[in-house]
Amino acid sequence: MANIKVTIAYDGTNYHGFQEQRGTRFKTIQGVFEEKLSWLAKEEIRVIGASRTDSGVHARGMVVNFKPGGLLIPPERLTYALNGVLPQDISALKAKKVSAAFHARFSAVAKTYRYVIYNGKMPLPYLRLYSYHVHRALDIGAMREGARCLIGRQDFSSFRALGTPVKTTVRNLFDIKISKMCELIYIDMRADGFLYHMARMIAGTLIQVGMGKLKPHQVAEILAGCDNMMGGPAVPARGLFLINIEYPAHALVC
Amino acid sequence: MANIKVTIAYDGTNYHGFQEQRGTRFKTIQGVFEEKLSWLAKEEIRVIGASRTDSGVHARGMVVNFKPGGLLIPPERLTYALNGVLPQDISALKAKKVSAAFHARFSAVAKTYRYVIYNGKMPLPYLRLYSYHVHRALDIGAMREGARCLIGRQDFSSFRALGTPVKTTVRNLFDIKISKMCELIYIDMRADGFLYHMARMIAGTLIQVGMGKLKPHQVAEILAGCDNMMGGPAVPARGLFLINIEYPAHALVC
Repeated sequence: MANIKVTIAYDGTNYHGFQEQRGTRFKTIQGVFEEKLSWLAKEEIRVIGASRTDSGVHARGMVVNFKPGGLLIPPERLTYALNGVLPQDISALKAKKVSAAFHARFSAVAKTYRYVIYNGKMPLPYLRLYSYHVHRALDIGAMREGARCLIGRQDFSSFRALGTPVKTTVRNLFDIKISKMCELIYIDMRADGFLYHMARMIAGTLIQVGMGKLKPHQVAEILAGCDNMMGGPAVPARGLFLINIEYPAHALVC
Repeated sequence: MANIKVTIAYDGTNYHGFQEQRGTRFKTIQGVFEEKLSWLAKEEIRVIGASRTDSGVHARGMVVNFKPGGLLIPPERLTYALNGVLPQDISALKAKKVSAAFHARFSAVAKTYRYVIYNGKMPLPYLRLYSYHVHRALDIGAMREGARCLIGRQDFSSFRALGTPVKTTVRNLFDIKISKMCELIYIDMRADGFLYHMARMIAGTLIQVGMGKLKPHQVAEILAGCDNMMGGPAVPARGLFLINIEYPAHALVC
């Protein structure tokens, strides 16, 4: 049975997150994607998503996989077929056959999220759904200094919203890059996984450092405290983009 | 009587252009702005806009002016007051008192428009309302070469949609800059004025050059032809941003 991996992008504004919530009336990206895919495949298909993204979070590199029962459109044509039926706020970027063992969630070895801050003085309407507006000028140097201590394999309990039970709160944060382009500031975080709200709480804490409300060295204290009341607040979902998910080569060959 | 200049930004997606069309039910940026300004000023206020932008066109530097009859909120506080009542897709960026002779449209000496092209292979949903998607890779070098002949004081009849009668079709195009950032291509056009659809038809023609459908030297032939059937089609409004409007110093002092 073929195993198909599809990379998708979406504007999360009008959805209640990625993951389908069966039995509810909330519109989710997974729900709409499965509906259109099933229609094309002429069979009921459920997909496995690599990540749950919250309501309002966007993606340019979400990954799903599924095993169609019958014959399906060849992967090289599947993206075009999907984009012909998907609404404009969801699009298929790539599709390929992968090994039977490939699992969008469990095979993933790294994920990259980007948090976008618009740091102009006054609000810019056309950025409002795709960034978080911080009008006070942020000190990028201080933010970079504060971010440094977060890199590595550590317990991120301080940067986690309670809710979903997890086996461990240890994650390996491979890198944080903070860059500025005109009035936009990007916080790019690459890790082996993210706890619930972790990316948004790290961004919120670094914004407080950028504002001078926290000193850079206090980020290390917050991390060491392992207390989710100490970290910055989770900044709004609309600034967050799931950029990329990485898999080992052996999971991709088929 | 005070004369107030306000710089505004907007997301044009949900409006029928900037200019109010009295007696119609179309929602315009000017209409909404005047309604909120009048409410704050407690008197009926009409504003003069520097430019008409089409349905779907965005702005980060539209300029309006108006002469309030009574006392109004001081300019330094007016932007905050306006942003408190305007919908999220319109915002006031700056407000200042200007000379009585200042006229948002007639005093303008230069306008800059930016056309945004998303040149990735597959559609990116969160860019769909703020760019034009061209999936075929564009040759920036050829576009720059084609753009060069447009610079200067010339008859732009070939880059004009018929409709509004104008005294002259001669405009001075001070500069065109084409830049690329990842998969986004920006065409920045600065001129003393733009004919109806001129910015979008220039962008459309340069895109055809970038695709190889037109040779760079043919842009000069199209310009010389003075025939609006020769130029490229006007590309969609959603990729166009009114960036900036310039005024001479004497019009601004008060």
